[in-house]
Amino acid sequence: MNPGDLPSRVLIQEEGPREGFQSEAPVALPDKLRLIEALATTGLSRINCVSFVDPQRVPQMADAEEVARRLARRPGVLYTGIWLNEQGFERALTSGIDLLPNVVASVSDTFAMKNNRCSGAELIRRQGAMIERYKAEGLALDAAHVFTAFGCHFEGDIAPEKSHRDAGRAAAGVREHDTTPRTVYLCDTVGAANPVLVRRLLGLVRSRWPDQEFALHLHDTRGMGLANALAALEMGVVRFDASVAGLGGCPFAGNRAAAGNVCTEDLALMCEEMGVDTGLDLDALAACARLAQDIVGHPLPGKFMNAGRIRHASAAARA
Amino acid sequence: MNPGDLPSRVLIQEEGPREGFQSEAPVALPDKLRLIEALATTGLSRINCVSFVDPQRVPQMADAEEVARRLARRPGVLYTGIWLNEQGFERALTSGIDLLPNVVASVSDTFAMKNNRCSGAELIRRQGAMIERYKAEGLALDAAHVFTAFGCHFEGDIAPEKSHRDAGRAAAGVREHDTTPRTVYLCDTVGAANPVLVRRLLGLVRSRWPDQEFALHLHDTRGMGLANALAALEMGVVRFDASVAGLGGCPFAGNRAAAGNVCTEDLALMCEEMGVDTGLDLDALAACARLAQDIVGHPLPGKFMNAGRIRHASAAARA
Repeated sequence: MNPGDLPSRVLIQEEGPREGFQSEAPVALPDKLRLIEALATTGLSRINCVSFVDPQRVPQMADAEEVARRLARRPGVLYTGIWLNEQGFERALTSGIDLLPNVVASVSDTFAMKNNRCSGAELIRRQGAMIERYKAEGLALDAAHVFTAFGCHFEGDIAPEKSHRDAGRAAAGVREHDTTPRTVYLCDTVGAANPVLVRRLLGLVRSRWPDQEFALHLHDTRGMGLANALAALEMGVVRFDASVAGLGGCPFAGNRAAAGNVCTEDLALMCEEMGVDTGLDLDALAACARLAQDIVGHPLPGKFMNAGRIRHASAAARA
Repeated sequence: MNPGDLPSRVLIQEEGPREGFQSEAPVALPDKLRLIEALATTGLSRINCVSFVDPQRVPQMADAEEVARRLARRPGVLYTGIWLNEQGFERALTSGIDLLPNVVASVSDTFAMKNNRCSGAELIRRQGAMIERYKAEGLALDAAHVFTAFGCHFEGDIAPEKSHRDAGRAAAGVREHDTTPRTVYLCDTVGAANPVLVRRLLGLVRSRWPDQEFALHLHDTRGMGLANALAALEMGVVRFDASVAGLGGCPFAGNRAAAGNVCTEDLALMCEEMGVDTGLDLDALAACARLAQDIVGHPLPGKFMNAGRIRHASAAARA
């Protein structure tokens, strides 16, 4: 690899307020707003803020409408949310959140049962109704998320060939409705990927769908998050989900399912230092990471927020 | 990259009991012995146990001779130590520790002043006397360590061209004594490297010294440890320093200088999952990591010790 093999620019999308806070004890509304508003000043253009899901199952997101309503918004930033079914979508639609319609599939059947309460095949079938609903609102399909594309805690290792085959089934389901997603997210839902697996799966899906953009949703459960991102960058991936401070799980709880996304500012630092433009203000992101840590009240795994840049450290040491 | 581009086997050398415990509040002798003896059952063949340095400056290592004397040793494992000068070497020589004679150089002058109390040029000059002392004992030169090869908190960014030039000066100094080190360690002393920098410096030194083995001593200060290791593996590097549990610094203290080495078991996991043989027992290493955490009494940054393997998690979930 030389720097020329890397993309010149990447898009990092923030998942902390949604996926991160969903894994924590419920966070007070003003704290949610404070973090989201601070994140919006860092150059991030997409911030996933809320889930429109069953408040009985996910009490952390019970105030989704309130968050959407009270956010002080900056122009140029999309404040997004997720939903798992039509009921959730109706809530999102009336909430005023920025809508990025998506469909989902799960390579692991067991994960689909736990997350979506149906089999993987049924989950694909249900996406057809979602697509028609989006069409009725005049909304284009933004993304398809392929959950557990690299492995699953319930089903163990998942071969890239199986993920590739299941992605094909999901794609066929979407095509029946005469649409294509702008981006397909290969989701390492539980942090099962390794750099070789990332390249193998990307190679397979790229060969089959050469015109499709693929993005990565990585978790740092086993410490390989940035190494996996590096492998993907070298394959030309230019879109990543990440969460500020690595929010999304307490690394000390041994809670595997809750381990956080790859850390936004650590990923951005690696990109910037390799000459890959992120459009992000690293120091402002580090301040957000420390704010996130204050809000949840326990240490979060992000490293840059404590370590700083070498050049900055140097200036401080000379002063 | 495909798996075939990676080395078939790597040697991971354990730094935790030495470099790790040196950054912690003093650890009791029995705890040191317990961890070192446990590490020796995991397949590690080199464990850096102690520093023979001034106990006034580094009280954590004041019991170096006692550790060397009381260790229950396993055949096939080298229990090593470090020293910074002739006085330290004389102590190591009589201690019974396994001797791996080395020389050092520092690309950052300021770091040399702080660590070795002399300029970088003077440090190179002093290595000549060390080599002669090793020769007098009939000991071959094992390693040369190039400190701060990727940057320094005091001097900031360090260009690979400067590290390459300074390594050349150090090499000339060693050659005057008709010897060559078995391995040259490019040390990312403070965690300043990124994957592009790793490849650029490796490319430079490899071109100049094609027959020399180069190894990496990485710190995970800014979260890029495993990404840097991946870049090095793809360049064919087969020898790494690492520390169990990422021992070597508390990530929550904001203490930059003390941030730990890349984590032994997390690095080993990445290697093994990519088909690179480490010869290490990952589960035994995870148990050592948890022991290290118990001993220091605070969370350590290693991830695998909490997350486990996906396949294992799967078996547990099915049970």
